[in-house]
Amino acid sequence: MTAQPTQTGKIIISVDAMGGDSGPGVVVAGIAKSAKKNPEVGFLLHGPKDVLSKLVSKRRVLDGRVVFRDCPDVVTMQDKPSQVVRSGKNTSMWSALESVRQGEAHGAVSCGNTGALMALSMMRLRKLPGVNRPAIAILWPSRNPQGFNVMLDVGADVRADAKDLLQFALMGASYARNGMELTRPRIGLLNVGTEEHKGRAELKEAHALITDFADQANFDFVGFVEGSDIPGDKADVIVTDGFTGNVAIKTGEGTASLIGDLLREAFKYSPLSRLASVLAITSLQRLKKRIDPRRVNGGVFLGLNGTVIKSHGGADATGVSAAIKLAFTLAKSGFAEKLAARVASTAELEQDAAQSALQTK
Amino acid sequence: MTAQPTQTGKIIISVDAMGGDSGPGVVVAGIAKSAKKNPEVGFLLHGPKDVLSKLVSKRRVLDGRVVFRDCPDVVTMQDKPSQVVRSGKNTSMWSALESVRQGEAHGAVSCGNTGALMALSMMRLRKLPGVNRPAIAILWPSRNPQGFNVMLDVGADVRADAKDLLQFALMGASYARNGMELTRPRIGLLNVGTEEHKGRAELKEAHALITDFADQANFDFVGFVEGSDIPGDKADVIVTDGFTGNVAIKTGEGTASLIGDLLREAFKYSPLSRLASVLAITSLQRLKKRIDPRRVNGGVFLGLNGTVIKSHGGADATGVSAAIKLAFTLAKSGFAEKLAARVASTAELEQDAAQSALQTK
Repeated sequence: MTAQPTQTGKIIISVDAMGGDSGPGVVVAGIAKSAKKNPEVGFLLHGPKDVLSKLVSKRRVLDGRVVFRDCPDVVTMQDKPSQVVRSGKNTSMWSALESVRQGEAHGAVSCGNTGALMALSMMRLRKLPGVNRPAIAILWPSRNPQGFNVMLDVGADVRADAKDLLQFALMGASYARNGMELTRPRIGLLNVGTEEHKGRAELKEAHALITDFADQANFDFVGFVEGSDIPGDKADVIVTDGFTGNVAIKTGEGTASLIGDLLREAFKYSPLSRLASVLAITSLQRLKKRIDPRRVNGGVFLGLNGTVIKSHGGADATGVSAAIKLAFTLAKSGFAEKLAARVASTAELEQDAAQSALQTK
Repeated sequence: MTAQPTQTGKIIISVDAMGGDSGPGVVVAGIAKSAKKNPEVGFLLHGPKDVLSKLVSKRRVLDGRVVFRDCPDVVTMQDKPSQVVRSGKNTSMWSALESVRQGEAHGAVSCGNTGALMALSMMRLRKLPGVNRPAIAILWPSRNPQGFNVMLDVGADVRADAKDLLQFALMGASYARNGMELTRPRIGLLNVGTEEHKGRAELKEAHALITDFADQANFDFVGFVEGSDIPGDKADVIVTDGFTGNVAIKTGEGTASLIGDLLREAFKYSPLSRLASVLAITSLQRLKKRIDPRRVNGGVFLGLNGTVIKSHGGADATGVSAAIKLAFTLAKSGFAEKLAARVASTAELEQDAAQSALQTK
C-alpha cells in the first residue's frame, strides 16, 4: 500500500479534527504550527467542513495545504468502542482512518477516544500478519542520551501473554530504530525485580523467548527491568502489558505534575523566592521543555497496516503539532513498511524460537 | 498478644540492625535520631553484639534505651526467601521478628531483603485469621490535605484476586484511620480507566465486592481510579495487586528522581541560575521535605499478627528514624489489635457480601 499524496511531493497526514477535549480550533492551530515549520507536510482534515473551513481560512500558512473530508458525526470520549465500530461510519475518526486505508494519506492522527480509535483501527486497517495484539507505544523522558525511552504497551489491551510480549519487543525495537535512530536498541522486560526468578509465569516465559530472539532481531536484551528504569538508562525500550504500562505512565505523569505544581508554589512563597524564579526562568524553561509531555505527545499504534497516532485528548496546539511531527517522521522513514517486513520475516523464526524455548524449559 | 516492654513505660521497637545497604552504623544513627526526638521509645537491637555495642556506646542519647539480641548471621539482599525460611534461624531478621512474636516488642523494623522479610513474617507471625494474602502498604506524596495517600499492595505478592483486593481495601482503610487519623477514608481501586466496563475481570468483581462492603466497613468507595490518582486527591487509599503497585511506585520514584536531577542541572547552568538557586534555597528545601521519600520511609506489612515495617534498603539515618516513628505511631494507636479485630469481625460479613455479589452478577 503506497500512499497517494493529494498534494504533489508532500507527505500527507490524515487528521481527525474532532473528539479532542479542546475542539477543532486547537487541532487547526496545531496543524498550522506544523505547516509553518515543515514545508513537506500536507493535510487531509476530517470533520464538519463548514466549521473546519472557517478555522482553516484564518491561517494563511494553511493555504493550499489542506484538503477537507466532510463528515457530520463525532466520536465522543463517552462512546463505547463497540458502538463506534458498529455505527461510526459517518464520524471524523472513521474517515481519518479510511484515508490511510485507501492510501490517500501516510498516517493518521486523532485526539479522540483511545479505545474507539484502537477498535476502529483494528477493524479498518487490520492487524499485520503475524501480530496477535497490537500495542500502543509512547516516548518517556529518560536519562538516555536520546532523551527518551520507548514504552509499550501503554493501553491497547489489558492483557499480554509471553508471545505478545515478544512481539512488543520486536515492534518496539523497530520503532526505536526508525523513530529514534538507534541502530541496536536495548530492550528491557518490565518486572518487580531484576532477578530471573521474580515475577509472573508469563514473564519468565517471555524472558526465555526474547533471549532466544534478540540476536536474529538485531537488538540487545537487557533482561528484567523495574519501574525505576522506565525513566532510566538501562534500556531504550520497555516492554510490558497494557494494564501495567498504562498505570505506570499515568503514575509518572501524575507525580511529575504534582512536583511541577509544588515547585510553582515554592517559588511564590516569599519575595526572595519570587525574585529567584525570575532569575532562574530560562533554566526552568529549559527543564520544562526537556520533560514537557506535550513535546512527546503521541502514542503510536504498532502492529497495524498503517500508522495511527493517538494524540492526548487534552493536547494543545503544541501537542497536536508534536503528534503530527511524529507521524511525518515515521512516514518519511517508511516505518510502516519496514515494520511489516520485519514482522513478516520474523514470524517464522519466532515460531521456532517459541517452540525451542518451550522444549528447553 | 500484649507486648511486654523491657523498659518500663516505653514503647519497644525491635530493630534488625543488619542487611541494609549501608550497614549497622546507619541503623544505629537512625535509632539515635528517634531516641532524641521521642522519650517514649526504647529498642531491642538485633545483630552481632560486639559490633553493635561499640556503635551504640558512641551515642549518649541511647544510654539505657537499647537491649541487645546477639545473632551471628545476616540475611543478604541476594538470599532467596525460601532459603532464609529454611535456615535463617540465627539471623538478625529472624530474631527481630521473634521479639514481636514473643510479645517483647510492639513492632519490628528492618532495612533488609523484602522478600525474605515477608516470607519470615508470614511463617513466624502468621496471617490474621480471615486474611488470604498479606499486603505491603506505603505512603505516597499526594494533593490531599493529609499530604499523603496510602497505597497497597506494593509488592508482597505479584497476584491478587477480587477477594484479596477487598481485604486490601479493608486493611488500607484501617491503616489510614490509625496511621493518618482519617475517620472515613476514601478508597479507590486502581484500573486503566474510571468507567465501570474497563479493566480485567477480577477488577470488575472486586468493584462489586467493595461497593457492597463500604458502608459496613465505614469507608467511602470512590470506584476505579487511575495511575494519575495515586498522587491525586480523589482517594486516600489506592488498592491494587502487588505487581502493578510495585511498578507504579518505582516509576513514580524514578520520575521524581529524574526531575530532581534535571532541576539541579538547570540551576547550575549559568551564573544567574546559580544565584537564583541560592535565593530560592529555603523554598526548594521546603519542597524537597514535602516529597522526600525518606520522610515517608517504611512499607507496613498488613494482615499479620504483629506490626512489621520494611524500611528502604538504602535508607539513611533520617529514613530509618522515619520507619521507627511509623512503627511507634502504629504501636501507640493499638493498630495491630484494631486491625485484627476489624478483620475478624468483618470476615463473616465479607463472606456474605462475596456470595451475594457472585449471585447478582
